[in-house]
Amino acid sequence: MSGAAAPVLLAGEWRASGDPTGVFRAENPDSGEAFGTEFPISGEQDLETAIAAATAVADELAAADPARIAGFLERYADAIEANREALAELAQRETGLPVSPRFLGAEIPRTCGQLRLAAQAARNHSWTLPTIDTGNGLRSWLAPLGKPAFVLGPANFPFAFNAIAGSDFASALAARTPVIAKAHPGHPGTSRELARLAHAALLAAGLPAASVQMLYQLPPALGLRIAGDPRLGAVAFTGSRAAGQALKAAADAAGVLFHGELSSVNPVLMLPGALADRAEALAGELLASCLLGAGQFCTNPGLVLLPEGAPADAFVDAARRGFADAPEGLLLSRGGQQHLRAAVDALVAAGATVLAGGGDAGGAGFRCRPTLLTVEGDRFLANAAALQREAFGPVSLLVRARDPAQMEAILRALEGQLTGTVYAADDGRDDALHDRLAPLLRARVGRLIANRMPTGVAVSAAMNHGGPWPSASHPGFTAVGMPGAIRRFAALHSYDHVADARLPAPLRDRNPGGIARQIDGRWTDADVGADA
Amino acid sequence: MSGAAAPVLLAGEWRASGDPTGVFRAENPDSGEAFGTEFPISGEQDLETAIAAATAVADELAAADPARIAGFLERYADAIEANREALAELAQRETGLPVSPRFLGAEIPRTCGQLRLAAQAARNHSWTLPTIDTGNGLRSWLAPLGKPAFVLGPANFPFAFNAIAGSDFASALAARTPVIAKAHPGHPGTSRELARLAHAALLAAGLPAASVQMLYQLPPALGLRIAGDPRLGAVAFTGSRAAGQALKAAADAAGVLFHGELSSVNPVLMLPGALADRAEALAGELLASCLLGAGQFCTNPGLVLLPEGAPADAFVDAARRGFADAPEGLLLSRGGQQHLRAAVDALVAAGATVLAGGGDAGGAGFRCRPTLLTVEGDRFLANAAALQREAFGPVSLLVRARDPAQMEAILRALEGQLTGTVYAADDGRDDALHDRLAPLLRARVGRLIANRMPTGVAVSAAMNHGGPWPSASHPGFTAVGMPGAIRRFAALHSYDHVADARLPAPLRDRNPGGIARQIDGRWTDADVGADA
Repeated sequence: MSGAAAPVLLAGEWRASGDPTGVFRAENPDSGEAFGTEFPISGEQDLETAIAAATAVADELAAADPARIAGFLERYADAIEANREALAELAQRETGLPVSPRFLGAEIPRTCGQLRLAAQAARNHSWTLPTIDTGNGLRSWLAPLGKPAFVLGPANFPFAFNAIAGSDFASALAARTPVIAKAHPGHPGTSRELARLAHAALLAAGLPAASVQMLYQLPPALGLRIAGDPRLGAVAFTGSRAAGQALKAAADAAGVLFHGELSSVNPVLMLPGALADRAEALAGELLASCLLGAGQFCTNPGLVLLPEGAPADAFVDAARRGFADAPEGLLLSRGGQQHLRAAVDALVAAGATVLAGGGDAGGAGFRCRPTLLTVEGDRFLANAAALQREAFGPVSLLVRARDPAQMEAILRALEGQLTGTVYAADDGRDDALHDRLAPLLRARVGRLIANRMPTGVAVSAAMNHGGPWPSASHPGFTAVGMPGAIRRFAALHSYDHVADARLPAPLRDRNPGGIARQIDGRWTDADVGADA
Repeated sequence: MSGAAAPVLLAGEWRASGDPTGVFRAENPDSGEAFGTEFPISGEQDLETAIAAATAVADELAAADPARIAGFLERYADAIEANREALAELAQRETGLPVSPRFLGAEIPRTCGQLRLAAQAARNHSWTLPTIDTGNGLRSWLAPLGKPAFVLGPANFPFAFNAIAGSDFASALAARTPVIAKAHPGHPGTSRELARLAHAALLAAGLPAASVQMLYQLPPALGLRIAGDPRLGAVAFTGSRAAGQALKAAADAAGVLFHGELSSVNPVLMLPGALADRAEALAGELLASCLLGAGQFCTNPGLVLLPEGAPADAFVDAARRGFADAPEGLLLSRGGQQHLRAAVDALVAAGATVLAGGGDAGGAGFRCRPTLLTVEGDRFLANAAALQREAFGPVSLLVRARDPAQMEAILRALEGQLTGTVYAADDGRDDALHDRLAPLLRARVGRLIANRMPTGVAVSAAMNHGGPWPSASHPGFTAVGMPGAIRRFAALHSYDHVADARLPAPLRDRNPGGIARQIDGRWTDADVGADA
């Protein structure tokens, strides 16, 4: 181990941080001990270098051949795959999440698949919605922003949402937008290895070397300053509501787009028929979903709405036993452990009762006890905002409603959420209640789920990993799923009576690539003027 | 004329303002005199009534049959058409714009056509981008926001952008979103008549009566308060940059979407070959475009970039003569006249020289002299922000560049703009310079136009009436053109393993309406599972 802090990836090369304001090391969640290389906390000079370098290549990258972009994304995916074991081991040490199945079986394949889907969308232009109006001489499509994106990654997915490898990264690059990544300080070594692979793939693809840059950490005030720098086109963020809202305010004031996925308790509505049919099984599903990644999923089922009655009692009893018997979880960081403790305390202070878990887990490292809480409907309604506080860990709050009218009132009191789930009986017994309640949930969530827990987030064109405020910054955009996520980094470009030869190739009369385009109101892959 | 102020349209009925903070009357731009009915300036009580009533019907409207929405929009268009002469005369008195060709020949037909295109998009679901992923059990589409939109209309289009009849209104209603309209105080009588027709059409269509409400005027502080009310889903605004940015800040802080079309000088780039071929004709085109609506168009060509040389001299000379000989223009309002005077003074203070016009027009009313200014490239570059100030009237600034490198520098100094135009010779002489300069313009504008002035804004699916910050609030959205403009009022709704019968009809397996949907990556109007 060298005495000097690790280099940052700036302006197309690995170099020492110009003006570090400090250093830090990764911490092993299992022991709580710091280990390995020192990483710099960058200062103003690094940031200025990064913004200037990204701005200088933004036009060139925007004009790059999409096939070259796709080639970069695919090379990068191949490189991650080729190095998956070493990456997974490193990430395991830094995050406490298991090498297998979590990294090798799920997150790394997902990350590579996501990069490849972004490559495919770059190649087939599906994110650009090409539109041709022959009568008015107008053509339009979604085009690159032409300014860099500042991407801040979260702690909980060192690959799939890493600022240097995840969905925001893949989306911005697919839109030919330079990325300034701020890795999460919880997994600096993993981020460094990923950045090495990304940098090499970028050079091999012949793209501008400053298209991808990475810093490890910033003082918060500097983070806000960069988010509000008008040279940026967009800020993309996944993390806590408080940090996200501060970044959003900075970006908003400068006319910089802000795309944030902020917080959610992902309400699960259990209808009486479903509970009567399979209370034990549903309790098991809830527990398994809450334990995934020690509950550190954006879509963790943090609130379960139940009707009073014997079927719910059986469910609650089974869930209580399950949570009480569940093994301790390992949290990602010391800060996460503190936040989780504070959140559970706040839920109790707001009127919730601990059914299982609660309190600190013993031992070294960032351990926590899976925790199940409950609250009566009246009390929930009296303090609905405080009782929707996200507890980022293996925690869920059961809300018991007196009757359907109170279930309705509770649903109306929900803030915007990423997901909402309804469990209903198969045989139609729950249908009337379903029809009454599901529309209220639908209006308040990005993804409505039937009869399964919300923790699975497929990388799909029909996914919405987003939702109404305050779960996300904009209800119309998703952070996951190609080509939708790419459109967050796009500017609408219209061409008015521009000669065919001067149009971008995908908007010309001839369509040799068979791109899907809307011509005079009809989707087709034909040439303009073809009888199809 | 009654002594009482005109009623407002609130909570489904015409009623007296609950707590007016004052009254105002329309002013005749020709004489400067106030005339006709007194209109109330609403206070807090009206606003609270409006927000509560719109919120109460938001779910019902979101769930309404799109055919009913389309029926409303079409009935309303029919009613405007049936009353076009009376409406045009009223608008003429309030705005000074001519009954014909402006209102009867252009703006009213455009407004009705726009409502009908919105109706068509509501019926065929084209704005919703239905997406089906059979492998992952996921389906998504764009759905109503589920919360009301607050729409603020501008002075300059009493029909096509009126808060109670224009593009924002039609877009929000097509997205089944209730509208609280704040009419522009420059044409309260026209807005009142339009609101009467809208209200009657709404009742005839059987939609919730509070889906459309209208106030005439608000104290600015109250306007900011409503824009920041978290019960709103969106604010849509067309107007000045200062007012728009203040509203945006209020909306942003509350997580309310803000869609603003703020300001633009719409740069026109004249290349040497085009100038050599047709200097006189181009000067005539510039003058005609600047005089349209007395230059009070969002897309008025307010900045013309010229290369030094004899062809440009001929153009400048012809333009100077044209502007000097042009008749006085009639501005929309006393405030507009003051703003225009201040803007021209500011351009001169920033280094521009008046070539023609300038100074006040004599006589009564809100008259102005068409004004042509010029500035050297060096001076422009030294003060680029101040020299891009929008002068809302028949005003254009000629910027003379020393050489292609300076043209490039000037283009790089441009802020985000709604439009950018390039005039080039037909025979290829300008091609090299075009290829060098056009990409710089392209990156800075929403709509790139070839060889025609920017004042025509077709209501087209391929239009972009929007652009990079600060010309508009979001570079990815357009304020004009269906179905794009409707998507500004949408939330992305994903359905995860939801049973077919519980999906919205357009997402079900069977597609009897032949809606265009993207199924497993391919656009088709077939059923799911059909071999097509």
